[in-house]
Amino acid sequence: MSRGTVPELLERNEITELQQWLAEHQPHEIADEIARADELGAVLLFRLLGKDEALTVFEELDPPDQQKVLSGLRDHSFRELVEAMDPDDRVRLLGESPAKFAHRVLAGLSPPERATTAALLGYPEGSVGRFMTPETVTIRQYMTVSQALDRVHDRGADAETVYTLLIVDDQRHFIGTVSLRDLVLGSAGQRVSEFAETDAPRVKATDDAEDAARLMQDANLLDLPVVDSEDRVLGLLTIDDAVDLIEAADSEDIARQAAATPWSGHYMSASVLQLARSRIVWLLLLIVAATLTVNVLQFFESTLEEVTTLALFVPLLIGTGGNAGAQAATASVRALAVGEVRTGDILRVAWRECRVGLTLGLALAAIGMVLGTVFVHVRVAATLAVSLIAVCAWAAMIGASMPLLAKRAGIDPAVISTPLVTTLVDATGLIIYFLVARAFLGL
Amino acid sequence: MSRGTVPELLERNEITELQQWLAEHQPHEIADEIARADELGAVLLFRLLGKDEALTVFEELDPPDQQKVLSGLRDHSFRELVEAMDPDDRVRLLGESPAKFAHRVLAGLSPPERATTAALLGYPEGSVGRFMTPETVTIRQYMTVSQALDRVHDRGADAETVYTLLIVDDQRHFIGTVSLRDLVLGSAGQRVSEFAETDAPRVKATDDAEDAARLMQDANLLDLPVVDSEDRVLGLLTIDDAVDLIEAADSEDIARQAAATPWSGHYMSASVLQLARSRIVWLLLLIVAATLTVNVLQFFESTLEEVTTLALFVPLLIGTGGNAGAQAATASVRALAVGEVRTGDILRVAWRECRVGLTLGLALAAIGMVLGTVFVHVRVAATLAVSLIAVCAWAAMIGASMPLLAKRAGIDPAVISTPLVTTLVDATGLIIYFLVARAFLGL
Repeated sequence: MSRGTVPELLERNEITELQQWLAEHQPHEIADEIARADELGAVLLFRLLGKDEALTVFEELDPPDQQKVLSGLRDHSFRELVEAMDPDDRVRLLGESPAKFAHRVLAGLSPPERATTAALLGYPEGSVGRFMTPETVTIRQYMTVSQALDRVHDRGADAETVYTLLIVDDQRHFIGTVSLRDLVLGSAGQRVSEFAETDAPRVKATDDAEDAARLMQDANLLDLPVVDSEDRVLGLLTIDDAVDLIEAADSEDIARQAAATPWSGHYMSASVLQLARSRIVWLLLLIVAATLTVNVLQFFESTLEEVTTLALFVPLLIGTGGNAGAQAATASVRALAVGEVRTGDILRVAWRECRVGLTLGLALAAIGMVLGTVFVHVRVAATLAVSLIAVCAWAAMIGASMPLLAKRAGIDPAVISTPLVTTLVDATGLIIYFLVARAFLGL
Repeated sequence: MSRGTVPELLERNEITELQQWLAEHQPHEIADEIARADELGAVLLFRLLGKDEALTVFEELDPPDQQKVLSGLRDHSFRELVEAMDPDDRVRLLGESPAKFAHRVLAGLSPPERATTAALLGYPEGSVGRFMTPETVTIRQYMTVSQALDRVHDRGADAETVYTLLIVDDQRHFIGTVSLRDLVLGSAGQRVSEFAETDAPRVKATDDAEDAARLMQDANLLDLPVVDSEDRVLGLLTIDDAVDLIEAADSEDIARQAAATPWSGHYMSASVLQLARSRIVWLLLLIVAATLTVNVLQFFESTLEEVTTLALFVPLLIGTGGNAGAQAATASVRALAVGEVRTGDILRVAWRECRVGLTLGLALAAIGMVLGTVFVHVRVAATLAVSLIAVCAWAAMIGASMPLLAKRAGIDPAVISTPLVTTLVDATGLIIYFLVARAFLGL
């Protein structure tokens, strides 16, 4: 057992203790400590690793942390490392790096690796092409099982996966897939064509990578064939990349839902300024939008002065409306993300959520009635109760519809964040409240 | 091309058209339509499927939708279907079913399948045991590659996966794993022991399933060995189940973040009452908590009456504070979920977020200063600006710390939802605002 945590050991520069810690831990645990450390610490930890383990650990780092480690390495180790990376991982790293760093990576590569990398970099950001591996094993449908297994044996070492084999014709056109499992369970003389899945799902390299990953999850696929516009085989999207894609998409959606700009680094290695930057834009937009509430209150200032007790319930009312809207918006964004709702469902969704909001509003109105009566008197209580019903129905309806409208307009639905919905409901909720108050209190 | 969408065809009962639609679509697309349909429609669609395809489609349904389909089937088809399910999928279905339905499932099973199912059901909910497959291929380390491949050939048909083979001793103790890839790439005479990964990560059947799934993602594993407390092999957790676990956990976290109770069904097949039920409890708790804001406003009523213009900025101030708190809480909950932050980091997190909040507050204060001056006058503007700085720092700090405190107390950190943080910040933000106002306006 080493004495102290890794950050403490790094602080005290205790090399022997660090080496012992590294020997006792798994690559993914080491990767986590590297991600949490600053650049100096990360590079020190990384240099203490053996060559093979270093590569394994490196592959488990996120791109910003890979960059952190690489920046601290000398040319020779730097080149060795980027040359050994899988092409799809390398492309992801380059996609998130500043130009100068990307240039250094590309310059360090051998010509064939550079060509592969450049080809993948040619696909649009966020497309399947950026995440697929071109290193696959292709076979022919007239082969026997034993011929196909021989080919896997000969060619498999360079491939990222050998569990899904691609059946192609002379021009590399996609014919189907066959799993290594079927070959191993089959008998030597059977033909590959007997096992071929010719209607296996496949995607184009220019298709959206997140959609492809969700397709793999829905259809329980280990690997998804990737083809070009003429149905020629380009590579495979593997499940490990699909899982990372789904997780990254979920993290992005979650960050957006709280009105922050997603960023791909480690939370603990982000600086105060980086965190502030990822949040400030939305906060500024929202405070400007919140100016609406000032306008509304100013418009109804005479009502407010006449019945100052109305002000007592403003935070409670708009807070509750915001909460109901946030629940509906979050449910709608998630249902869109996992494919349970489509943009065509908008009227159905709006009508359902309106009824859900009314149901919730009725329950909350009962509490509002009690609170209003206790704190002020029954007419203000009635105002509050009726407003709660109207605000909840309105909040749930627009909260659930806005993400679908956004998607229809080609905007990421997750942009309809909880704070955005809350802010909009604040202003409209106040209008509802004061209109109800005027009617009920005869102002 | 069929004429109309599936719901329309179901409505009009156009069997031929439905059959054509089914023939033209992939199992996961069919599963999606079944999930969206009501019970009658779901069962009709399902019965139109061929036997093999029916099983594939069934496996891609979520447990509530599986139950919907099964409930509409006659005993014979019902039994055939549950008998053919993978044991881990069956256990998941039973875990989410009412007792009467579960009883019917268990009663329909053959004795060996019932025994396997009962064994898995013995593990706690949410543990690895509930999701693992006991159907694996075990080998011995003294076997040659060709002996091992023969064994896979003979035994593999019943196994859920043959890509990760478990090396065991006479008492089924875990020795290590070997991948089918290594065997196929190796030469016939080599020993299994040459390829054995003896320090491969493994988990106990009683461990938390979500943690195990995240470990698989971090370490890029296709399958994760599951052992008992004496290190005897029980089965494997496969990547398809891990992906589903991660997605379900993310959906749960997202629902909790918006203060809704997570539920595992399809959004479009949930009724208005089901949706309302999943949201009402938190809304009720939050409106009760929001009563604090009424108390605070009542306490400062004299201040408010003296300077009624203070009321103009109440929604803007508490809304902004709520937004800043929501951002911090969401970042903290997510960092905990993906393992980037541990409970021991709480002081570091609180201090960082306090500084992030101050930074954000300074930027927002500039806008507050302008707004306050335009709408009222400079002293109210200064009150607003200073309050914004204090509220943002406070909101970010408690928003980020509360999830860590919750985790320390053994509560799911995702319970610290955006609406909960917003509601707490509302009340405390008002106190800050009025205290600053009293000081600045000399009340």
